[in-house]
Amino acid sequence: MDVPFGKPPVERADAARNREALLCTARAMIAELGTEKVTMDGLAERAGLGKGTVFRRFGTRAGIFRALLDAEEQRFQAAVLSGAPPLGPGADPVDRLIAYGRERTHFLLARQDIARAAVERKGPVPAGGPVFTQPHIGMLLKQARLGLPDPETLAFQLTSALEGPPLVFLSMDRSTAEQRAERCQGDLGALLADSWQTLIERLAGR
Amino acid sequence: MDVPFGKPPVERADAARNREALLCTARAMIAELGTEKVTMDGLAERAGLGKGTVFRRFGTRAGIFRALLDAEEQRFQAAVLSGAPPLGPGADPVDRLIAYGRERTHFLLARQDIARAAVERKGPVPAGGPVFTQPHIGMLLKQARLGLPDPETLAFQLTSALEGPPLVFLSMDRSTAEQRAERCQGDLGALLADSWQTLIERLAGR
Repeated sequence: MDVPFGKPPVERADAARNREALLCTARAMIAELGTEKVTMDGLAERAGLGKGTVFRRFGTRAGIFRALLDAEEQRFQAAVLSGAPPLGPGADPVDRLIAYGRERTHFLLARQDIARAAVERKGPVPAGGPVFTQPHIGMLLKQARLGLPDPETLAFQLTSALEGPPLVFLSMDRSTAEQRAERCQGDLGALLADSWQTLIERLAGR
Repeated sequence: MDVPFGKPPVERADAARNREALLCTARAMIAELGTEKVTMDGLAERAGLGKGTVFRRFGTRAGIFRALLDAEEQRFQAAVLSGAPPLGPGADPVDRLIAYGRERTHFLLARQDIARAAVERKGPVPAGGPVFTQPHIGMLLKQARLGLPDPETLAFQLTSALEGPPLVFLSMDRSTAEQRAERCQGDLGALLADSWQTLIERLAGR
């Protein structure tokens, strides 16, 4: 049987399985040991793969964490685009805006350690989130028909209001961020999520 | 007459005059030639000072622009703290919030070139503004008595909404930022300022 294009897809499926196995092992190591103990060598050993495979897949140690974040970001976006309401489609647009901000806040804060480890030494803090958040907020603001003169510019500002505070914590070193969260006397995520809800409710005149 | 501490203050006054003269010359060069043509050598020559003096004062070329930004930031903060209302004290807190956001937007956007030149190669984008903006917004939110459950956390988010969009443009290279502003079909500053006003008016239930 002539299967001229048979081999590359099979290799790609293998690569995808390898990748998934590596990410799965990395998640287990992070849960057990924390991000700081995850190294290229350690990951290769635990996954039973050569160090070269891990290196080719991720490039650098930070690349492991970037791949993890990408995978989680995909999952988050899928829940928004086709998951259950009110995060997913079907609910009132204002309820979706509130749900999006609440979920996004917890999503970003719960991944601070991984996001910090995903930054290359001396590299800029990656800012992939707004690329999805801004058009999503803009769409919901328009659907909500709140009589806003310029929902697109407001979406730009609300995206900053939502994604900015977690980035501020991310740009601090770890101990400073932990001290700040402690000083807030409570769960920073809950404070930010409740405050986002207040902002959207006022915007909607509720 | 015994003036044991006489000499250092005199030197400091000299240094302050030198510094002011250098900043003044730098401003004139930027207005004439644009930020990109301002160099340590060019500034020293035009100010009639040795290159060593300019180097000791600013450290790097980026340091010139940081010093300029610092001086303008001081002037902006003085206008907020003791200038004419509604930016300064005396007006209704909601009007002051609106005025602050409008002025701040134009302030940040008008200084994009200088802010870009103030970033050290490979260094992080400096983020000095929020240090003043966040407590100021928080104070006005409290004074306005809007029945907000948590004005401090909201001040954190509104600071990001205000200072974030200009930072997004700052993180782009110059031509991309200019293209984006052109695509907005108009004055980006006016769009952001109007949108900020809408946000605050809704927050205040106006």
